[in-house]
Amino acid sequence: MAIKVIAFDADDTLWDNEAYFQEAEKKFCVLFEDYLPQHSVSRELLKTEIQNLNLYGYGIKGFILSMIETAIRITDGRVDSKTTWKIIEIGQAITQMPVNIMPGVEEVLPVLRTRYRLVMATKGDLVDQERKLRKSGLERFFHHIEIMSEKKEDDYRRLIKRLDILPEEFVMIGNSIKSDVLPVLNIGGHGIHIPYHLTWEHERVDTQVEHANFRQVEKIKSLLEHFASGQ
Amino acid sequence: MAIKVIAFDADDTLWDNEAYFQEAEKKFCVLFEDYLPQHSVSRELLKTEIQNLNLYGYGIKGFILSMIETAIRITDGRVDSKTTWKIIEIGQAITQMPVNIMPGVEEVLPVLRTRYRLVMATKGDLVDQERKLRKSGLERFFHHIEIMSEKKEDDYRRLIKRLDILPEEFVMIGNSIKSDVLPVLNIGGHGIHIPYHLTWEHERVDTQVEHANFRQVEKIKSLLEHFASGQ
Repeated sequence: MAIKVIAFDADDTLWDNEAYFQEAEKKFCVLFEDYLPQHSVSRELLKTEIQNLNLYGYGIKGFILSMIETAIRITDGRVDSKTTWKIIEIGQAITQMPVNIMPGVEEVLPVLRTRYRLVMATKGDLVDQERKLRKSGLERFFHHIEIMSEKKEDDYRRLIKRLDILPEEFVMIGNSIKSDVLPVLNIGGHGIHIPYHLTWEHERVDTQVEHANFRQVEKIKSLLEHFASGQ
Repeated sequence: MAIKVIAFDADDTLWDNEAYFQEAEKKFCVLFEDYLPQHSVSRELLKTEIQNLNLYGYGIKGFILSMIETAIRITDGRVDSKTTWKIIEIGQAITQMPVNIMPGVEEVLPVLRTRYRLVMATKGDLVDQERKLRKSGLERFFHHIEIMSEKKEDDYRRLIKRLDILPEEFVMIGNSIKSDVLPVLNIGGHGIHIPYHLTWEHERVDTQVEHANFRQVEKIKSLLEHFASGQ
């Protein structure tokens, strides 16, 4: 059955994102190196973030709150308000970052949209993702923008239903095997993985994917050949 | 032209919300009454919230971050981490609150959905709104759920386009004249106002609405008559 909808993840697929979070985290770790070695601060932060995921979801606000919580814990309550304010500034600075479009994106999208419905399916905070979308100038290429709180099988089922297509007519493209590929393969769709050099610890999987509906490409430009020759 | 889609606001229209925020704010003000009278703390918090609206959007995470920022400012940096932690707990407690469905909602929705497409169109944080929706058990009545970062004219235009209808086939029902009624009337849709006894300061307007497409009803149950007799 032919593909009707091509869905793109956004963060670290269409534009850089993880690098900004890692940069912020690095600054956070430096702030507390009198208390703990940097890698331990980092591990504590990750622990807090995972614990808070249900409560806060993904995005900058939850990241700031998790940093503040971690700071209180690892300093045993000795963190002062000046440092708390620095943490807020470290997080807010991420919102000021430019949106760097990945190489090839602006060549690939205009071509694919003439033959497929293009969807942006991104996980995260509404305000963060809309800000990046606006800055990116990519909105015009997409038929539909879906900002999801999670990317699990049920979330994709709902999206596919709303698009009024069958799972086998849907392909998801992204840098996360865990969020962009596996759940889509599991419900009968297609997945294309474009690796990014940075992956958030929590998104890492060790699985080797072997599946008829799975492809991996090194660069987004390869999608032109892939979709030109039919799948 | 006949109405095809009835869209409902959620917070303070289908379920209580503002009361929980006001309760949290009250606790926050009490924490700092050694520094400032409670009503001044409240005013300072509102100022911070409005300043941060573009950055954080609506919802609990932004509310917590604005409380922390206000605390640092009004104590001139003397707020300690124990108090910062209390602020986080005050905010997180909102997520634990029950979702109280407004009287009449569970009678009205099943009837209206047999004759119209029902949409929930709510402003706020993705994670917060999905949590409330899940707890409410109301999801089954809706054809489509739209969680919006803002409710301005362009946001409604996009929603109506996505629903594939004309503005005059759309009616929005909610407790906020500013967010649920005026922008919809301005783009050619219909608006029904159901007042709630609490309104967040920032949502208040003084305007008296006079418009052919506008109605005000006191209770959600009145919608049954309204939509039974045609509009």
